[in-house]
Amino acid sequence: MMASGTRVAVALLHHPVYGRQQEVVTTSVTGSDIHDIARIARTYGVFPFYIVNPVTAQREMVEAIKRHWFEEVVGHPRTEALSLVLPVPSLADATADLARRAGGPVRLVATSARLREGVTSYKDLASRIRAAVYPAVLLLFGTGWGLTEEVIAQAEERLEAIDMGTGFNHLPVRAAVAIILDRLLGSRLSY
Amino acid sequence: MMASGTRVAVALLHHPVYGRQQEVVTTSVTGSDIHDIARIARTYGVFPFYIVNPVTAQREMVEAIKRHWFEEVVGHPRTEALSLVLPVPSLADATADLARRAGGPVRLVATSARLREGVTSYKDLASRIRAAVYPAVLLLFGTGWGLTEEVIAQAEERLEAIDMGTGFNHLPVRAAVAIILDRLLGSRLSY
Repeated sequence: MMASGTRVAVALLHHPVYGRQQEVVTTSVTGSDIHDIARIARTYGVFPFYIVNPVTAQREMVEAIKRHWFEEVVGHPRTEALSLVLPVPSLADATADLARRAGGPVRLVATSARLREGVTSYKDLASRIRAAVYPAVLLLFGTGWGLTEEVIAQAEERLEAIDMGTGFNHLPVRAAVAIILDRLLGSRLSY
Repeated sequence: MMASGTRVAVALLHHPVYGRQQEVVTTSVTGSDIHDIARIARTYGVFPFYIVNPVTAQREMVEAIKRHWFEEVVGHPRTEALSLVLPVPSLADATADLARRAGGPVRLVATSARLREGVTSYKDLASRIRAAVYPAVLLLFGTGWGLTEEVIAQAEERLEAIDMGTGFNHLPVRAAVAIILDRLLGSRLSY
């Protein structure tokens, strides 16, 4: 089942995110993030997929990859999915673009493997999306070792971490996007 | 919530699978499949993660990657996840290994983006896993353009395709594994 009223989009942040030592870094865009998340977003009817990276050469690389597929690999599912990808320099740019497309304010929702307290449940956010409480929801995902506290604090709400009680919370961000979109937008009624 | 009684494992088949023209091929192992699915399996408490490939050099490459991480990158989450990875030449080998570990017969469950009729729902299989109806369930995933009809027919049951009604069913296999494990083993009660 698709979200009918609230528009849902995804932003993958390459800055500001943590590095391994909890330092704030800018990560590089990886090909598998672009292709995988584009295909996941396309499956769930979610767009744009914002690739947030302040480095101009990184954004140009994303555009070059898109151009290559659009020009050389016409008709391939990957090409179709890549049309959802939009590189932008900052989260503010992604938010402004989504507000324009949705014609109203954007609700920022942070995700992190660290979030345990003061969090939103999947069920709760899913029902608000279905009820079209907001014109648009932008789901924020961090590369590297995750979104910084500053970004998490800036969001209107924080989604509970995916935690299966196995003592391991190191999903690839690509997998986290897939699971979270399914929990929020997949029909809970059919299974 | 973890499966308490039924042991669940994942097999990623590189043969026999379809190529783009519906021909039967053997695909190559990719690094992102190994790492991503290992981390997803570890998150959901699922093991082994069988990498099925009849080409000896391909299985040796998987072992070399494991060795590299075990020896060089001690303490990294990826290294922990890679310990679940087990390269085997055939699906029969994976099934026999899992039967030994579980001490009983293995129920083979095929997945495919093409499956629409005569399929098992997620809810139904999830409840049988929770009820420990079988000693072990082996979830079969295909690389390339998917499991062959022969493999699908050989399985005891077929899981319904992930279909969000958006007209696009080209998820990366890594994302399909994440979503399917979450639907089968994630607690439906908490959201």
